[in-house]
Amino acid sequence: VTEISYDSHMHVELIQSTGTDKTIVAAARVSTVGELSADSFAADAPDQTGLINFLMKNRHGTPFEHGLFTFRVRVPIFVMRELHRHRIAFSFNEESGRYKKLDPVFFVPDVDRALIQTGKPGHYVYVPGEPDDTQFVKRSIERNSIQAWNEYNLMLDRGIAKEVARMVLPVNIYSTCYVTCNPRSLMAFLSLRTKSDEAKFPSYPMREIEQMGFQFEDHFSERYPITHEAFCKNGRVSP
Amino acid sequence: VTEISYDSHMHVELIQSTGTDKTIVAAARVSTVGELSADSFAADAPDQTGLINFLMKNRHGTPFEHGLFTFRVRVPIFVMRELHRHRIAFSFNEESGRYKKLDPVFFVPDVDRALIQTGKPGHYVYVPGEPDDTQFVKRSIERNSIQAWNEYNLMLDRGIAKEVARMVLPVNIYSTCYVTCNPRSLMAFLSLRTKSDEAKFPSYPMREIEQMGFQFEDHFSERYPITHEAFCKNGRVSP
Amino acid sequence: VTEISYDSHMHVELIQSTGTDKTIVAAARVSTVGELSADSFAADAPDQTGLINFLMKNRHGTPFEHGLFTFRVRVPIFVMRELHRHRIAFSFNEESGRYKKLDPVFFVPDVDRALIQTGKPGHYVYVPGEPDDTQFVKRSIERNSIQAWNEYNLMLDRGIAKEVARMVLPVNIYSTCYVTCNPRSLMAFLSLRTKSDEAKFPSYPMREIEQMGFQFEDHFSERYPITHEAFCKNGRVSP
Amino acid sequence: VTEISYDSHMHVELIQSTGTDKTIVAAARVSTVGELSADSFAADAPDQTGLINFLMKNRHGTPFEHGLFTFRVRVPIFVMRELHRHRIAFSFNEESGRYKKLDPVFFVPDVDRALIQTGKPGHYVYVPGEPDDTQFVKRSIERNSIQAWNEYNLMLDRGIAKEVARMVLPVNIYSTCYVTCNPRSLMAFLSLRTKSDEAKFPSYPMREIEQMGFQFEDHFSERYPITHEAFCKNGRVSP
Repeated sequence: VTEISYDSHMHVELIQSTGTDKTIVAAARVSTVGELSADSFAADAPDQTGLINFLMKNRHGTPFEHGLFTFRVRVPIFVMRELHRHRIAFSFNEESGRYKKLDPVFFVPDVDRALIQTGKPGHYVYVPGEPDDTQFVKRSIERNSIQAWNEYNLMLDRGIAKEVARMVLPVNIYSTCYVTCNPRSLMAFLSLRTKSDEAKFPSYPMREIEQMGFQFEDHFSERYPITHEAFCKNGRVSP
Repeated sequence: VTEISYDSHMHVELIQSTGTDKTIVAAARVSTVGELSADSFAADAPDQTGLINFLMKNRHGTPFEHGLFTFRVRVPIFVMRELHRHRIAFSFNEESGRYKKLDPVFFVPDVDRALIQTGKPGHYVYVPGEPDDTQFVKRSIERNSIQAWNEYNLMLDRGIAKEVARMVLPVNIYSTCYVTCNPRSLMAFLSLRTKSDEAKFPSYPMREIEQMGFQFEDHFSERYPITHEAFCKNGRVSP
Repeated sequence: VTEISYDSHMHVELIQSTGTDKTIVAAARVSTVGELSADSFAADAPDQTGLINFLMKNRHGTPFEHGLFTFRVRVPIFVMRELHRHRIAFSFNEESGRYKKLDPVFFVPDVDRALIQTGKPGHYVYVPGEPDDTQFVKRSIERNSIQAWNEYNLMLDRGIAKEVARMVLPVNIYSTCYVTCNPRSLMAFLSLRTKSDEAKFPSYPMREIEQMGFQFEDHFSERYPITHEAFCKNGRVSP
Repeated sequence: VTEISYDSHMHVELIQSTGTDKTIVAAARVSTVGELSADSFAADAPDQTGLINFLMKNRHGTPFEHGLFTFRVRVPIFVMRELHRHRIAFSFNEESGRYKKLDPVFFVPDVDRALIQTGKPGHYVYVPGEPDDTQFVKRSIERNSIQAWNEYNLMLDRGIAKEVARMVLPVNIYSTCYVTCNPRSLMAFLSLRTKSDEAKFPSYPMREIEQMGFQFEDHFSERYPITHEAFCKNGRVSP
């Protein structure tokens, strides 16, 4: 089936964003100075690091909500499923298997993907397998993807509804989604979906969602450098 | 692969619920009588139909939030995916393909499932196909389920991590989930995920999520008969 | 008490916003064209009115979430209280009577404020009173504001905590708040907090929150002209 | 004004609740055992303490959402204002100053209320004042409450709308509200609105909302003893 392609990457594009460290400072200062908080946006506004660090450390979370990131992501369904479990201040619009014929792009792990799981549930650790494990997995997934794609097309060719035909598609098929969140909800996502030695509460995320998360984090640190540093410095706990 | 089984049903069990039509009345009346709203719970509380109908018609939604339903559902992943898109006042805990080996139960459409899609996106209508379409779909899905289940086991037997091996599983495999919502969020769900001639805003749900929705609705109408009747009577618009 | 001032206006400033009608179209089209939805942002993207109108009419709400408005509002506490009841996709940071001495600015109704309430609860209509009713109300509110401001200062001068001293302040004192929402949550607000002959579900908002709402709406219609027109044309029902 | 009364207490009544420690265990176990999680409800279900402690410590929050508490609270508006800032999984219906004449019950601090604020914003500490400070505050608040109540009645007697007349009422007047939340959102509330030496992230709540919070907590610990103990033992961090 020559039209099938395989991919091992999580694709993230930033569509739009708004808000800066100054927005957070202004929103926080309204509690103590009211209207005068407007001066937080001035070019010569005083240093903001101390206040942002204070907010982060003491978990005053609401000032971190006055901003937005919209990403377009292209990831396999097994990653999308985890992404869609984030409900608070997350918005989604995804490609629909009911409305369109899906594209024949399937995820396969690359050689860097640790394939063996050790440890207890909730604390799984993943380690590399035998040298040819990656090939074994790759061949199995490819066989399966081809089989599923063929069955999908057999049904579509007969005129079966897309929403029925897609029942055969495996969760490693790629899908596209617009994702909008705010800095606070993004930090909540990062605290759960990335693993870091700096984390006060350790997480054990699936590698693929973490790869997407790190790309979110790059955009976050670029747009909100002070906030991002305070997040890391204070144990990557969402405020 | 004798261990595989096929299913065409959506399974819903009510685990717990709380709140009645009287709770809604009490919560609504607090705005006009304050503390005295406590008498709404009395055995001889006056008729509640008029007030509930007024709330529903005029979309005063908050009084419908003081209650809860917890369901345990067992449905295919392609239904679970739609279910998990409901974020507001919905809570979920689902079986994990990272933590457990999934069970070999796969969805196949039964003979009553219309297989042919007509009309435009957003207004699809489904009609029955040719006499042997159901058999065609069934065989295709079964072949695919067996293939996927075999590949899954091949990888697991080799010691590949469950979260990797499961990448071959198709979206018609069943999963189990606890779902909690309140009467208002349940009505929002029903307004979108069921089709009814009474609906002021027509919906075009996928049949399988609608089958789950009707079971939710049965529990709802049993526990909140007055509210359910007002919901239907006022165009099935979530208040 | 010469430092006291009176105000009859609701003050709204737009701090930041992002997203346009094109964002909504791109997010909606991802369901039917996947990745290709990116072309919705192109300069020569086809007409968007039809699709936005379709989404609004059929209550496909999620595409309207990929945008943001941040306002700074200065309104009396009795308006702030209603504003803060909006929970979904609304973020707030408000001036604190615990952390700062409040400013002596108090609301008084102007001559255009209808003062007499007729009709039944839930359907109140407000009509102008006798010619000197406005003066009567104004004098009463001014006497009360002065008295409260004096008591507040008496306690503060003695060293009593701000959070205790402020207990005497009436709900017509002004406060400042940053408010962030998205186009969908803004429409939900407008559908409830403004009165319009175009509305499919009539609302009976308090005049002062409506005055704030109309200012929100001006910013909305300027930034999202197609969406705003579709909102009005389809009965001002939040999608 | 003999009809006025004063109160120094926060009133909390439990209206309904559902869910137990077993519900949490069942919802958590679905991820690892699927359907078999149903046996978590059995009379002889194995010890749950270990699992709940694990969930709490590692911040697996969703299993704590499948339950509900509905309280009716009667507290002053300055407390209600803080309560209403909790948006996630909180539902409210409150007495309305637009729809009913409010009751003449006003808050005054009792002798145990520390009246002097020291320390920096965000870390305020409250200490008792001079012996007659309480009397001073009490007299000031009483004068103010009487004045406001008189102006309110003057306007009402003239036929001025309730929503206008109430503008003179101070934030220490009592109001009644139905409040619904789940165990997780309740813990988020408690972590922010109570002060405890056990807390990993210290909070500096206003005394009156803390008094309400402790009453919520009593109902919580009675209904969910294992969960409550795990909450305290793990630093009162909401999972």
